[in-house]
Amino acid sequence: MFLAKVVGTVVSTQKDPKLAGLKLLLVQNLTLEMQPTSSFVVAADAVGAGKGEVVVCAAGSSARMTENTKNLPVDAVIMAIVDSLDVNGNIVYKKSDDV
Amino acid sequence: MFLAKVVGTVVSTQKDPKLAGLKLLLVQNLTLEMQPTSSFVVAADAVGAGKGEVVVCAAGSSARMTENTKNLPVDAVIMAIVDSLDVNGNIVYKKSDDV
Amino acid sequence: MFLAKVVGTVVSTQKDPKLAGLKLLLVQNLTLEMQPTSSFVVAADAVGAGKGEVVVCAAGSSARMTENTKNLPVDAVIMAIVDSLDVNGNIVYKKSDDV
Amino acid sequence: MFLAKVVGTVVSTQKDPKLAGLKLLLVQNLTLEMQPTSSFVVAADAVGAGKGEVVVCAAGSSARMTENTKNLPVDAVIMAIVDSLDVNGNIVYKKSDDV
Amino acid sequence: MFLAKVVGTVVSTQKDPKLAGLKLLLVQNLTLEMQPTSSFVVAADAVGAGKGEVVVCAAGSSARMTENTKNLPVDAVIMAIVDSLDVNGNIVYKKSDDV
Repeated sequence: MFLAKVVGTVVSTQKDPKLAGLKLLLVQNLTLEMQPTSSFVVAADAVGAGKGEVVVCAAGSSARMTENTKNLPVDAVIMAIVDSLDVNGNIVYKKSDDV
Repeated sequence: MFLAKVVGTVVSTQKDPKLAGLKLLLVQNLTLEMQPTSSFVVAADAVGAGKGEVVVCAAGSSARMTENTKNLPVDAVIMAIVDSLDVNGNIVYKKSDDV
Repeated sequence: MFLAKVVGTVVSTQKDPKLAGLKLLLVQNLTLEMQPTSSFVVAADAVGAGKGEVVVCAAGSSARMTENTKNLPVDAVIMAIVDSLDVNGNIVYKKSDDV
Repeated sequence: MFLAKVVGTVVSTQKDPKLAGLKLLLVQNLTLEMQPTSSFVVAADAVGAGKGEVVVCAAGSSARMTENTKNLPVDAVIMAIVDSLDVNGNIVYKKSDDV
Repeated sequence: MFLAKVVGTVVSTQKDPKLAGLKLLLVQNLTLEMQPTSSFVVAADAVGAGKGEVVVCAAGSSARMTENTKNLPVDAVIMAIVDSLDVNGNIVYKKSDDV
């Protein structure tokens, strides 16, 4: 899975019928130092993530393994909102500090 | 999923029989600032996308999860046409401005 | 899917038994301007592609969705031979010009 | 699969219900010379890996093929802890030297 | 699939139980000119490949399509040992020259 920050939303009316009601978010990939990169992904939301939150995304067929995304044509899903990250014994991210 | 702009079409007569009738489009990957990159993909069309439109594409096995692409040998599908994109509270793309 | 040009062949006798009779070709990835890149892939042939031809390849599990490649341990398949490509209204490739 | 070193942990309470009890670790990709790269992945743990250990990770749908990760929305799993690595006849890594 | 050279082995005792008896090899990716790159992969062996041999590897779910790797948490498999490679009419690799 990859770490990312929710930075935006996609609005679409003309889409595959199975996608009705599914929230599509723009998430920007993060480095291990919590810096945004130039990479981003459109991800389906399975956990009610909000803008600015750091999230964990699953890609590929695993993106269809949540209740929200079963059998849908989506290849990325937000499956967890991060509370905190520990890297080499240091807390490099804590949710309350950031959102 | 990734954001892309429809820039062209692929014509092919000698192909896997299951692909008959399927529209194959050339889509160019976009940055978060809506700039074209040097990357592109051949994607099956599941939503009637037209040239110049900004679209959302699903890759991998998820590309086979639309009615148009079920069980086909395709690894990328256009599954939504973008109306608008909001990044950090700014509308970075609106369909009527562009097509 | 990605665009590529057929540039070579792989000969192998010691291989997974299910691969017997399957043609493995070397295909070189192309830019949108039809220039070869330094990337290449070994792809199974599902359409009788010949050297020098521009082809469309499907990767991942979708590579197993042709009659030739069903349930085989292959992750890339040539599923169409390109007749012509239109990019932004210009024909950037036509088969008879090239092969 | 890829080689990586376990460098951290992800704490998350708001997540897909199926992920309850699953350990999510931060693993940093390694070069063939055992140097850390700037790439990292969030991986589910299927083998009880600890910080500092060198591990083998499987990605994609194969990440769901362990008892711990069956049908879960995870696309990377630690499926082996490395004891030693031999490259061109040299032992480039031995567990007891490092952890 | 990708071309690679077998350069090493992974020894692991603490691993997913389903992996017992499976040989995990280090394979280094090759350019079309048969030069090693800095990329490498840990691949399961399905064909009895030996060090120094040039091999074809399948990645993703297709890596589970050999008898040796069925349902295992592995995302790369050596499924063919290369006898020779022809690129643009030139033999760029022949097994007897190399091993």
